[in-house]
Amino acid sequence: MSDPLTERTVFVISDSTGITAETFSHSVLSQFQQFQFNAVRIPFVDTVEKAQEVAERISACAQESGSKPLVFSTLVDPRIARIIGAAECNFFDLFGAFVRHIERALGVKSSRSVGRSHSNVTSEQYNARIDAINFSLAHDDGQFVSGLDQADVILVGVSRCGKTPTSLYLAMQYAVKVANFPLIPEDFERGTLPSTLAPYRKKLFGLSIHPERLAEVRNERRPNSTYASLEQSIYEITEAERLMRIEGIPWLSTTNRSIEEISTKILNEVGLNRRSY
Amino acid sequence: MSDPLTERTVFVISDSTGITAETFSHSVLSQFQQFQFNAVRIPFVDTVEKAQEVAERISACAQESGSKPLVFSTLVDPRIARIIGAAECNFFDLFGAFVRHIERALGVKSSRSVGRSHSNVTSEQYNARIDAINFSLAHDDGQFVSGLDQADVILVGVSRCGKTPTSLYLAMQYAVKVANFPLIPEDFERGTLPSTLAPYRKKLFGLSIHPERLAEVRNERRPNSTYASLEQSIYEITEAERLMRIEGIPWLSTTNRSIEEISTKILNEVGLNRRSY
Repeated sequence: MSDPLTERTVFVISDSTGITAETFSHSVLSQFQQFQFNAVRIPFVDTVEKAQEVAERISACAQESGSKPLVFSTLVDPRIARIIGAAECNFFDLFGAFVRHIERALGVKSSRSVGRSHSNVTSEQYNARIDAINFSLAHDDGQFVSGLDQADVILVGVSRCGKTPTSLYLAMQYAVKVANFPLIPEDFERGTLPSTLAPYRKKLFGLSIHPERLAEVRNERRPNSTYASLEQSIYEITEAERLMRIEGIPWLSTTNRSIEEISTKILNEVGLNRRSY
Repeated sequence: MSDPLTERTVFVISDSTGITAETFSHSVLSQFQQFQFNAVRIPFVDTVEKAQEVAERISACAQESGSKPLVFSTLVDPRIARIIGAAECNFFDLFGAFVRHIERALGVKSSRSVGRSHSNVTSEQYNARIDAINFSLAHDDGQFVSGLDQADVILVGVSRCGKTPTSLYLAMQYAVKVANFPLIPEDFERGTLPSTLAPYRKKLFGLSIHPERLAEVRNERRPNSTYASLEQSIYEITEAERLMRIEGIPWLSTTNRSIEEISTKILNEVGLNRRSY
């Protein structure tokens, strides 16, 4: 029997969404698995008054729980950061820790403008994301084959191997236009890719999955069907991997990988891991 | 005429996906708008050999460009971090800067295990995300009304005001089940919410948008239609906002807001800004 996890409260505080501080706290705290961290995100803390309220809430939590909460913040305004830091807590000020060093490296002062990261989106960037999401929705599961020439990436793989979430994630986070196309028993019998895809071979990327996991996922959708049987899963996966090998399509297994990991590997393979900001 | 932006290369290095370091670098560098940062993400740097290759690449970039690149990293292994830090660069080591302080605050040593943040997903967490994405897809645009009782949030608003991307973002990032339902001229003539939604009033959240922006977005889809006219946009938005006010539905405008900001405000309003990890 393993020991029960010790619970700790984490506050994630930002003058904007708090997504950066949340991502960081989640990432660094994954190194402390003896604990269960209960995180409370408090976004849009952009005035002294709001900061004072939040500081009181943090100190009250310290009193109640008997342990100082961990506080992760991306507060641009040092006055607001000081108010939060003065609460009864362990304060981790992400911007404070780095901004001065970055100023020195770049030889200029930072603009100290609140809420820049997510609010300063240009209409162009916004439109690119929305276009990519709409593209991925319209080209999900091979449903719409015209316009494939506009795809940055075309994912192929058997039904339920993770194509749709991966397509949507890449569109949402990176404005990458991703179509996805199922590989079906008909393709395996013929032994070649669907002819629709032939002109786009360089854009193809394959996803695969352990047959046991595939059967599990399919059973949730259509319990006890032939489609969801382990036998069918083994057949489809064996054939799909054989086809991808023959056709020289790069592919990876989605089993035990998060959507983030799968997407990162795809961006890396297709050379789309560069961004300007 | 404004000065041209100074370009700087940024490397984002991680033993895992690099998403944390990328999010942070993007966020903190938005405070330095005199520069255009060209970011190169190098994920999965988890061996000394790979680190040495990357360090050489960074130093070569410094030589070629005549300025030291900024390097943001979330490297768990201090040996690997040291190799990168020894390259010709300004090195910002996110874990290094905080891990010791967090160890002191928690009274334990970190596990220093590589790739924890995204790879250690439990099958439960993965399934919850996939379920939420499938739910949002199935309940997009009011297309499927059964199962609305399972929704955490039901977004309402006129066509093209941003419901679909917001629904998908909340499902993808927070495993929140979000249905979305269009408000259409029929509803405005009747002057009440669609009867399907009546039982779920507490789950409703409204989105609105400036009529000018709405007309712009609709024109991209159906140029020069009545649907996309400014007149129609003004009519629908006026009526939709009136209906939401009468029905007491909380709502916000999506104009000039990123998907992240909209989603954060919704999570905040409906009290879903707590997570355990």
